[in-house]
Amino acid sequence: MGSLTAFTEMLATEVLLANPADNKAALREAKRGLLDYLASAFAGREDAGVRKLLHAIEAEGGHPVAALIGQNKRANRRQAALVNGFMGHALDYDDVHSDVRGHPSTVILPTLFALASGREISGKQFLDAYIIGVEVMARLGQAVGTASYLQGWHNTSLIGGVAATFAGALLLGFTAAETQNAVGIAASQAAGLRVQFGTEMKPLHAGLAAQQAVQSIELTQQGFHGIETALDSKISFLHVYGGKEADKTVPKTLTEDWGKSWRIAEPGLWFKRNPFCSAASHGADAALELAQLKLAVSTIKKIDITFPPGGDAALIHSHPKTGEQGRFSIEYVVALALLGNPFTLGNFGVKAVSFEAEKLMRKMSRSYDAEHKPDAQAIPKGRFTIVRITLVDGSVHQCEVSVPKGSPQAPLPDSELENKCRDFAPDQEKAERILQIIRNLENGKVSALERFL
Amino acid sequence: MGSLTAFTEMLATEVLLANPADNKAALREAKRGLLDYLASAFAGREDAGVRKLLHAIEAEGGHPVAALIGQNKRANRRQAALVNGFMGHALDYDDVHSDVRGHPSTVILPTLFALASGREISGKQFLDAYIIGVEVMARLGQAVGTASYLQGWHNTSLIGGVAATFAGALLLGFTAAETQNAVGIAASQAAGLRVQFGTEMKPLHAGLAAQQAVQSIELTQQGFHGIETALDSKISFLHVYGGKEADKTVPKTLTEDWGKSWRIAEPGLWFKRNPFCSAASHGADAALELAQLKLAVSTIKKIDITFPPGGDAALIHSHPKTGEQGRFSIEYVVALALLGNPFTLGNFGVKAVSFEAEKLMRKMSRSYDAEHKPDAQAIPKGRFTIVRITLVDGSVHQCEVSVPKGSPQAPLPDSELENKCRDFAPDQEKAERILQIIRNLENGKVSALERFL
Repeated sequence: MGSLTAFTEMLATEVLLANPADNKAALREAKRGLLDYLASAFAGREDAGVRKLLHAIEAEGGHPVAALIGQNKRANRRQAALVNGFMGHALDYDDVHSDVRGHPSTVILPTLFALASGREISGKQFLDAYIIGVEVMARLGQAVGTASYLQGWHNTSLIGGVAATFAGALLLGFTAAETQNAVGIAASQAAGLRVQFGTEMKPLHAGLAAQQAVQSIELTQQGFHGIETALDSKISFLHVYGGKEADKTVPKTLTEDWGKSWRIAEPGLWFKRNPFCSAASHGADAALELAQLKLAVSTIKKIDITFPPGGDAALIHSHPKTGEQGRFSIEYVVALALLGNPFTLGNFGVKAVSFEAEKLMRKMSRSYDAEHKPDAQAIPKGRFTIVRITLVDGSVHQCEVSVPKGSPQAPLPDSELENKCRDFAPDQEKAERILQIIRNLENGKVSALERFL
Repeated sequence: MGSLTAFTEMLATEVLLANPADNKAALREAKRGLLDYLASAFAGREDAGVRKLLHAIEAEGGHPVAALIGQNKRANRRQAALVNGFMGHALDYDDVHSDVRGHPSTVILPTLFALASGREISGKQFLDAYIIGVEVMARLGQAVGTASYLQGWHNTSLIGGVAATFAGALLLGFTAAETQNAVGIAASQAAGLRVQFGTEMKPLHAGLAAQQAVQSIELTQQGFHGIETALDSKISFLHVYGGKEADKTVPKTLTEDWGKSWRIAEPGLWFKRNPFCSAASHGADAALELAQLKLAVSTIKKIDITFPPGGDAALIHSHPKTGEQGRFSIEYVVALALLGNPFTLGNFGVKAVSFEAEKLMRKMSRSYDAEHKPDAQAIPKGRFTIVRITLVDGSVHQCEVSVPKGSPQAPLPDSELENKCRDFAPDQEKAERILQIIRNLENGKVSALERFL
């Protein structure tokens, strides 16, 4: 059976031979993912948690080697990975991947930027490593299956540190033995509890995973010695966290069909258009469509919002008091849309919910329909949201969405991702330089990009 | 049931009110534990892994605030916790605790030294915090039970970071809310795979746990926000790692009989006399007793070494090639004893096993006896080792040990712990100052001690 095979070595060997940026679809999605990660980090750069982390690393001290995104500051590699990982995920505005069941880019890219800083790394090497990081994270996500999530872990950190370590090893040209050693060091730090959702710890999980990866790579560079078989055997990483499910799935998921296509492009990354929980994306798109009817709010009698059972589990606030709580409220998102208020960061910040939104939210209720069959393309599988408005005159207007814009089945155009980056970059001139460099990054150098971060 | 009670708050409240160093037995054992930790760290100070970590932190940079033991160097608090945690456990020479099923002092004390550095902390505060760290780690060890070990985790790191965070919170006078927050940050980093045993990662687990604790305390000081209920609920720390076993045991173990006695004294710490695996301690004591017969090695026909089934699981080398492998070999330990070779670090280092020892080991064999009943005080429960020498003239000499010297049932005298510290301290004058300060630490300051580390 699988549990006694040399998976760590097999995967390391595949990783180190990979040139995935030669694949056009993967290359394209990697550049889009990079753009979206930077946009998300720029958007999060003034988050209160970022300020706290900056104070903490200032108190520690360290050689200022690696850029802290949007801060005009540098820190040591480990600190930069920690802060940039947090920053990319601070607003829950960064990409998601269905195989990962979590957030890949905000772990992989901060690790790679940290390791690339102060070194001569080509854009091609960087993109190769990023595609591989997402690939390994997606495959590990499938290997641990639902067991790890149900037990209580957050996949972003649980598998992110190991995946980012594989990516870092490829970036720096490690041997297979070095790669396996570094992966072992990272595997022995895999953690992150889902019970933290809704606190600053959720985004910090991304930062901690990136920190782990950098530390595992750097200790390996010093010759520090751990096991080289972290993904094998009965008491190794995959079995410990994935249990019996992993024993069954591992042989298939880790290297099967390697290189036929790349997970970054197929099934692909889900980019967020809006800074709120992705579980509200379907209802948001439905409400935006209904908003085009320009119904006078005073004519609305009631609004029913229907999910499959459990489809609103993450949307924990029915009566949010602030925009921040509104990130996890379908009612607030629908209210903003119908009131013609934009989905800006300001509307999802610390300020109190407006009187108009509050009044409109009082007309809303949620219901669940286990029988309804959504679009076969629905993302996540089986998900839909129906927004149904009943007016005082008795007329009904309804819209259903199963595939929100930004998901791989309804991808955002490049221009929208570029604008997301422009919208939040602290410096427009730098933003244009960044866009320009990323468009042709496979022929450039990472250092050219890093100086504008 | 227990899973919905406010355990984190209950435990934090108990911890913050505790003055355990007022208890004479606890105070005495804490000072002995401190002495033994420093001795173990001094002994490990030139380990190859320490050099690698020093290179890694040098490359990072950082404000030199906290002492690196025996190095005449300082680093930032997090780095010092990492290195000093590793150093104390580098040779597997540090204390063990049966409730913890792992090594408490090499996680708790590096955390406390790091946090105390640059601050005015009394010896009494320091000892209180240390006793509490061991207390919490022992109780968490019982709460996660055998489930976490069997699943594949290493308790030293898995519960060490959380326990050390409680200790650090008491040291710095945190509020209950701050303590709970810091514990949550630490709980989200709990990890460490047992599959790493036999590599440098095993001792690094201790360092990583101490690093976690320091980072969790420092992020909390910056106002960084995580959950305050990490030990409660169905998807929190104890359930995630301890499973159903924890659900049953938690209500009893976390706060029951709090303060009646302290785990550091009852059942107490097991101090190691010798730098090899504690599973070889019983056989070592038996062989040392037989060595007093001064049998000529040439007259020995064969040596049988008998364990309960599985009692030698950790002793993976029957035919060690080097002293380092000999740390996990009952044959090598018995051979050294019978040859009159001392249990020095040199004899457990990188050099090859001597010809004489090799010759003698060839006469040895292991056997198992499931029926034999050892002493009721046996440690671990049910453990024994019988060394039985048959001479060429047919006569038989045999010795059985169930309670090795150094274990809580057969404690080392203070003088032996003081000598362990003297033997390995890099500077004899400093060593005497350290011994002097520890003898009366409850009336002194930590800074007075820290300057001689």
